[in-house]
Amino acid sequence: MYPKRLIHQAISNPDFPVVETKYGKLRGTWTDDCFIFRGIEYAKARRFHLPEEPDCWEGVKAAVAYGPVPDEISTRIPGDAFTEPHYWYPQSEFCQNLNVWTPSIDRDRKLPVMVWIHGGGQEHGSAIEISAYDGEELAKWGNVVVVSVNHRLNVLGYLDLSSYGEEYQDSGYVGMMDLVQSLKWVRENIRSFGGDPENVMLFGQSGGGFKILELMQMPTADGLYHKVSIHSGTGKDTCFTHENAAPVARDIAEYLGLTKESIREIETIPYYQLAKATNYAYDRFIERTGARLQWTPPVDNEKFFGNPQIEGVQFREETKQIPMLAGSVLGEFTSSCHHNDQIGDIDTWSQETVEALLKERYGVYADDILEQFRKAYPDKGAANALYVDVFMRKPHRNLCRMRADQGCGPTWNWIFAMDMPCYGGSTPWHNADEAYIFHHAEYFESEYIPGVSERVQDEMAGTLVAFAYTNNPNHTGLPQWETVTKDRFPTMVFDRKSEVRYNHDEKLIDLVEKAGALGPGGKGPVRTYGGGPRAHV
Amino acid sequence: MYPKRLIHQAISNPDFPVVETKYGKLRGTWTDDCFIFRGIEYAKARRFHLPEEPDCWEGVKAAVAYGPVPDEISTRIPGDAFTEPHYWYPQSEFCQNLNVWTPSIDRDRKLPVMVWIHGGGQEHGSAIEISAYDGEELAKWGNVVVVSVNHRLNVLGYLDLSSYGEEYQDSGYVGMMDLVQSLKWVRENIRSFGGDPENVMLFGQSGGGFKILELMQMPTADGLYHKVSIHSGTGKDTCFTHENAAPVARDIAEYLGLTKESIREIETIPYYQLAKATNYAYDRFIERTGARLQWTPPVDNEKFFGNPQIEGVQFREETKQIPMLAGSVLGEFTSSCHHNDQIGDIDTWSQETVEALLKERYGVYADDILEQFRKAYPDKGAANALYVDVFMRKPHRNLCRMRADQGCGPTWNWIFAMDMPCYGGSTPWHNADEAYIFHHAEYFESEYIPGVSERVQDEMAGTLVAFAYTNNPNHTGLPQWETVTKDRFPTMVFDRKSEVRYNHDEKLIDLVEKAGALGPGGKGPVRTYGGGPRAHV
Repeated sequence: MYPKRLIHQAISNPDFPVVETKYGKLRGTWTDDCFIFRGIEYAKARRFHLPEEPDCWEGVKAAVAYGPVPDEISTRIPGDAFTEPHYWYPQSEFCQNLNVWTPSIDRDRKLPVMVWIHGGGQEHGSAIEISAYDGEELAKWGNVVVVSVNHRLNVLGYLDLSSYGEEYQDSGYVGMMDLVQSLKWVRENIRSFGGDPENVMLFGQSGGGFKILELMQMPTADGLYHKVSIHSGTGKDTCFTHENAAPVARDIAEYLGLTKESIREIETIPYYQLAKATNYAYDRFIERTGARLQWTPPVDNEKFFGNPQIEGVQFREETKQIPMLAGSVLGEFTSSCHHNDQIGDIDTWSQETVEALLKERYGVYADDILEQFRKAYPDKGAANALYVDVFMRKPHRNLCRMRADQGCGPTWNWIFAMDMPCYGGSTPWHNADEAYIFHHAEYFESEYIPGVSERVQDEMAGTLVAFAYTNNPNHTGLPQWETVTKDRFPTMVFDRKSEVRYNHDEKLIDLVEKAGALGPGGKGPVRTYGGGPRAHV
Repeated sequence: MYPKRLIHQAISNPDFPVVETKYGKLRGTWTDDCFIFRGIEYAKARRFHLPEEPDCWEGVKAAVAYGPVPDEISTRIPGDAFTEPHYWYPQSEFCQNLNVWTPSIDRDRKLPVMVWIHGGGQEHGSAIEISAYDGEELAKWGNVVVVSVNHRLNVLGYLDLSSYGEEYQDSGYVGMMDLVQSLKWVRENIRSFGGDPENVMLFGQSGGGFKILELMQMPTADGLYHKVSIHSGTGKDTCFTHENAAPVARDIAEYLGLTKESIREIETIPYYQLAKATNYAYDRFIERTGARLQWTPPVDNEKFFGNPQIEGVQFREETKQIPMLAGSVLGEFTSSCHHNDQIGDIDTWSQETVEALLKERYGVYADDILEQFRKAYPDKGAANALYVDVFMRKPHRNLCRMRADQGCGPTWNWIFAMDMPCYGGSTPWHNADEAYIFHHAEYFESEYIPGVSERVQDEMAGTLVAFAYTNNPNHTGLPQWETVTKDRFPTMVFDRKSEVRYNHDEKLIDLVEKAGALGPGGKGPVRTYGGGPRAHV
């Protein structure tokens, strides 16, 4: 994803490294003991139609450069690209491509396969959007095959045009079906890249978590993966049905002047016109419902059974036994980093200042919240109590509980609580865990603490790698860690001193929620995007 | 520009590193002995109007994330992002920002300042477009202040609307005037970043070279820089005048349905409509002239005296004494790398194959060209004679000669001829020199040769740094190197064994040109872009 100081000369010759796929030969790059194959086309698709298998080719095709990333409705510079280093890339709706990092291209190695599903809700992002998504270090250190996938998003991935005729019955699912197609590609081709198609783990953060939970509720994806790891990937509380999705399609068609008769033109109009129409539909959606439109596939209880985070939705029998890791981050969207650049290390504030701010944020609950925070995180300064996320943490707790109650497979819960070094000291934010999950925190200015990051990323990446190898995240670098049960809620707290705690933040979360300080939508200091330039409209 | 494995913890606190500029305080980042300030706004501007000084601000403003890059008409994935690693970024027409890398923020250090002006003709690119543009390694290794600048391009930077009224008399110059404004910012502020405003060097490649030559022909830029280094930055053979630029404005206005009366709307229409109109104007231009439109400021012999590469244009008295470095690359657009990915190392071809290809490419001149190539590059295999650029090299030779003939200041000439490791072995291509100029070839998969790159980048970056310090590129790491005179044409050939050669490729260039194998437009294997996704239209 980004250049790294090389140890060896990189090799990408016509004859090495070359692998045979179902569709033809691919030439990648070998460098510093890692094989890298970028921009592999796993499907082709017409706009608003299901993905199909790619065409076969003669000879050797280059897989040395990334493929285009999904078209977005708008592309902005994050409020602080310093705390979240990004890798933007040219966009296209023809973005069905994936990347592979692997220590071996021996068919008999059968290494665990970790498929990264990116975040950005189901609206934004790409397989390479955030620099931390680079799989090289994780593949080498963990001796695993890392795959990252691009697939259609937003209006291109989820616009439900089924009310416009049989031909479009699947248009609300094509974004998810791209993902399914990519997993079929993994099943059929990953052995050539040293991977084991019978041991595939999905891991994803934020929107990547939603998408994993949705895949678990889509019968067509059954059997294509064997375990899942969901990071800060909850908090979704609405889902489309064909009924409540129809008005969105109507608004867009209306804006474009299209009718049932002329709707086919929507497949060929320039993308920026479609994006403009989508912005119109966003505004109308807020007028109608009071809420922001969140793209999802429509629930029909055939193709898709709904996101299990939503009241009343059950895990499917076919997938409920899938082992799960689930974790979130202490600060998430409320992290102090979003204003520490002005105020510096919050642990240097006076007691008076902290108490005043706690009162302002939590009102009558301030004292109880501070007391509970001290019990939950005894080593942290009181000011950190201002930046406790419950927007992600609470649904994660509910997800783990629900799985225990519904007799699902094993679920392990974690939280990333380590103070980040930037701006003198900041609670970790939404995305801060990825540099550690991918085992390369030493590449990130805002997150690297010499002598500390090395150990913590061994613990966190080691957890995912152990899970990938054994279906159990326990490894010798960490204390023993048990699953969530009806009467036991252990959480691995990843910090300067990582340890397992039991129900350690239950009361804290409930109090913060009572105080109405949920973060986004709540009273707390929330993360705002810079509203930078838009690539399209 | 891209994450690097860090040695120290990066620091970006409210109080350090903070510098005072004319407009207010800026907070950057300190990491691994380099201070980095990203996305500094040096001007603000209305569309099609001259840049103005930015507003002042209170408190400390963050300069930790890059600013938006210039809007392009289309953004594509290069044919091979492997040989040319890119760093794309969100675009905006409000892109008047620059980046600073410096080893010191002591006002009294007064280090030489090297201002990088990016390529992409005057149509494409940005200050951070190519990963090699990152200034950190050069600033630290060379002990210099490196600045890179974003400025308006294409229709936004050069559309000459002067025929639509007094208000738009400058619109054809605003892209260049952004650059001038950035150099004024350097003059007034760079001391706070450890730089010497009295010792400013401009260096740029490809379109960056055009832009430097154009600045030398614009009186308003006089005194803002003290030496120039032009890399593969020639070959431009047309220039606009108000007369021949007018039809372009007319085509765009016509497409947008704008008249003299309504032309002001062109300042507020959505950018993608303007981009669409521009594509229309591109097609019309080709119909009218048979040539591709190349944006330039219009020659009026007041604001701009024309590109001195063009027949009959003289260097201005005010700038002709400016010392100049001028160099190009052996392969440029004809480099073998553009098909070596299929054929591998050309030095493994049989003599028969090589001779057949030479005949095919050079016809009756094949034998003479091979003989001259062997004289010019005795250590290189015959197949390399197929990939000799003259499209850049010849105008560079002419530029150096013209300066000698016109009694201009000293001019040193170089060529980068080192075989690149990718695809088994490739002649160096257009852009291949930048990883060496910026002293970080070890970050580039396609260019790094352990044990060799380290020395060659010391030689090349050392040449620019010596020139920045002393106005003379000679340094102890290289053989003695003289300027071009009327009767002497020395060229520093940067290669595994760098040496000064005299008129070494004169006959070769003339023969290749006679054979009509100019590269682009010629018969030779030329570099083609992948025609990847477009960000706008």
